[in-house]
Amino acid sequence: MVFLTRVEHFNAAHKLYNPDWDKEKNEEIFGRCANENWHGHNYELFVTVKAEPDGGTGFVIDAKKLSDIIKDRVIEKVDHKNLNVDVEWMNGKICSTENFVVAIWEALLPALPSAVQLHSIKLYETPRIFVEYFGK
Amino acid sequence: MVFLTRVEHFNAAHKLYNPDWDKEKNEEIFGRCANENWHGHNYELFVTVKAEPDGGTGFVIDAKKLSDIIKDRVIEKVDHKNLNVDVEWMNGKICSTENFVVAIWEALLPALPSAVQLHSIKLYETPRIFVEYFGK
Amino acid sequence: MVFLTRVEHFNAAHKLYNPDWDKEKNEEIFGRCANENWHGHNYELFVTVKAEPDGGTGFVIDAKKLSDIIKDRVIEKVDHKNLNVDVEWMNGKICSTENFVVAIWEALLPALPSAVQLHSIKLYETPRIFVEYFGK
Amino acid sequence: MVFLTRVEHFNAAHKLYNPDWDKEKNEEIFGRCANENWHGHNYELFVTVKAEPDGGTGFVIDAKKLSDIIKDRVIEKVDHKNLNVDVEWMNGKICSTENFVVAIWEALLPALPSAVQLHSIKLYETPRIFVEYFGK
Amino acid sequence: MVFLTRVEHFNAAHKLYNPDWDKEKNEEIFGRCANENWHGHNYELFVTVKAEPDGGTGFVIDAKKLSDIIKDRVIEKVDHKNLNVDVEWMNGKICSTENFVVAIWEALLPALPSAVQLHSIKLYETPRIFVEYFGK
Amino acid sequence: MVFLTRVEHFNAAHKLYNPDWDKEKNEEIFGRCANENWHGHNYELFVTVKAEPDGGTGFVIDAKKLSDIIKDRVIEKVDHKNLNVDVEWMNGKICSTENFVVAIWEALLPALPSAVQLHSIKLYETPRIFVEYFGK
Repeated sequence: MVFLTRVEHFNAAHKLYNPDWDKEKNEEIFGRCANENWHGHNYELFVTVKAEPDGGTGFVIDAKKLSDIIKDRVIEKVDHKNLNVDVEWMNGKICSTENFVVAIWEALLPALPSAVQLHSIKLYETPRIFVEYFGK
Repeated sequence: MVFLTRVEHFNAAHKLYNPDWDKEKNEEIFGRCANENWHGHNYELFVTVKAEPDGGTGFVIDAKKLSDIIKDRVIEKVDHKNLNVDVEWMNGKICSTENFVVAIWEALLPALPSAVQLHSIKLYETPRIFVEYFGK
Repeated sequence: MVFLTRVEHFNAAHKLYNPDWDKEKNEEIFGRCANENWHGHNYELFVTVKAEPDGGTGFVIDAKKLSDIIKDRVIEKVDHKNLNVDVEWMNGKICSTENFVVAIWEALLPALPSAVQLHSIKLYETPRIFVEYFGK
Repeated sequence: MVFLTRVEHFNAAHKLYNPDWDKEKNEEIFGRCANENWHGHNYELFVTVKAEPDGGTGFVIDAKKLSDIIKDRVIEKVDHKNLNVDVEWMNGKICSTENFVVAIWEALLPALPSAVQLHSIKLYETPRIFVEYFGK
Repeated sequence: MVFLTRVEHFNAAHKLYNPDWDKEKNEEIFGRCANENWHGHNYELFVTVKAEPDGGTGFVIDAKKLSDIIKDRVIEKVDHKNLNVDVEWMNGKICSTENFVVAIWEALLPALPSAVQLHSIKLYETPRIFVEYFGK
Repeated sequence: MVFLTRVEHFNAAHKLYNPDWDKEKNEEIFGRCANENWHGHNYELFVTVKAEPDGGTGFVIDAKKLSDIIKDRVIEKVDHKNLNVDVEWMNGKICSTENFVVAIWEALLPALPSAVQLHSIKLYETPRIFVEYFGK
């Protein structure tokens, strides 16, 4: 079993906001991240898949093909977008990096070829904060 | 003369939009950056000052003091903000990184002690795009 | 289960020295790292915790709060310090990065809220050497 | 158990080419990577070993000694080389990063002292593609 | 005047070899870099242009357009290539990074719009060696 | 004229301390950096030289030779050392990064071959603070 990771970049706006709470509570809990006029980030996305390398190609998966799948299912939907407003699969969810990484896993999983297993999604929100998800 | 650079980090939302143009022209010229719902970035800000090192401290400037000035004049105003909406000194300007770096220079310059000269402001918008300004 | 990592920075002096050995043996075993006048490093500390994201916030833990705990329990004690001399919880231990990362785990663990599990501590001593500890 | 990682750098030429296929099929499958005149990379190699730290040194392994072993068994064989042509242990294998990382594991494993276990080999081929192997 | 830099990535094979010298002298002068079977690198290319920002866009140049020009004139010609064999504008030149950066300047200069000046080309050959050229 | 930069790494202990001041004033001015038990850093040193590339080699200077000179004149003297105590050419100087970069320039300059000019020395003390010196 070999693990292959592809790194992709995108940037987006978002805010942290729980609609069940009033503005004061949102600001108390989320601080500057609750700014109603939004803020944003450059995100670095690490997608790791695993498999026995194929005998013909020596590949777990063609890294170019993996990149195309990530771009089609994730980057196109989130790059230069507002995560709270523009991204269908974040609808009704609090837009934390934790919830976002789980949503990316779910968006990507059905598009991967059956020859590989999705191992993990790692997402840097800033150079000093990142989250990682390994599935249920 | 020795040059000292302090690096600070912030993140913000913005969009590229010229109010003299209609939505179609803005989208034609600015592409995904014109998304009316905003997008955002992690910014890395490099502030470089120069001077003869002081005889008593060996410093061009105390890097902690320089950091405090940058935080007071720039980071507090822009971090977790919407550059088009929340930042007074971007009012009426197209929110390009080029215009932003010039505005940061002008915000910072009057706050620096006279013992140092401001040499340059460098601003990374993404890991692959940055601008630099050396004054007029 | 989602994993959240917060990265913090500090710098410190130390030396590698076993008091049970004479100077010659210390120099033979530890080489330049045994310099009796000390040397030092910029350390990058990665603290990873895990939990189900909270329903109200979408957080494993507020990254700001995690940062405050790390600063209170670790950074305040070690930043701009001599690890052999100034840090109580390194007393009587050989000041290797391996022993240091275990001591950081033990210093941090009791301060974390019960809603998260401490998963790992990773510590870069130089850009080319790092250690990681996952608990007993 | 503490994990220690040493990072080493090398650069090399290679091409992706399956000798059982004709030139057209190689170009169809491997694209630009099949260029018969070769291309190349700067590789970053992460070697992770694990053990209980030694009582006398506080070390999993002396990082200098680990570096010497990696240089002797791997870097000397591959640095400034053509992986398809010059590296004995890539003979008869398709020169994918996946096959390469497994071959590095096998080249390194017998040279490590019995006091440590080899945990993983991670190899960056570009800043955006890396593979990792944990043994059989 | 504002300076804008765009960073692009490519990888390639090459060797250092002076055809006026015999094999022994080439190996004596160029060491491992003279390996007749080639070696290679991941290159990071920094292209810096300068201008007064445009009143309509706030841009020195659209960074996407600059990227397209760099890709058309440089990346397409050198990415996944052998610099000594496949790149017309390196013909008859010793394939040092110094000669290469000058050749990139000359390849790029005629393709830039007249509204900007080419300020510098910086090229990382490894993370620890880079060259920079500012024109004649 | 082409500029070539070589990056080297070292680590060292130091403290900021002016012997003309008492302990209180040192602590007031230098804060945590005045810790009498020392602290330390990983330093990244960028040495830039310039010349017309040589007709025979295509080199400004052989980067390996430049590295050897830097190691002989600088790294050997400062790596794993205490800058205040162990480094002859810091004697009697306040050990600021500013004074240190000037001292490195002076230590290196006489050892460079006459075919190149020393252009600049850049020194990172932390990932967020660096100084640069271009000579008198």
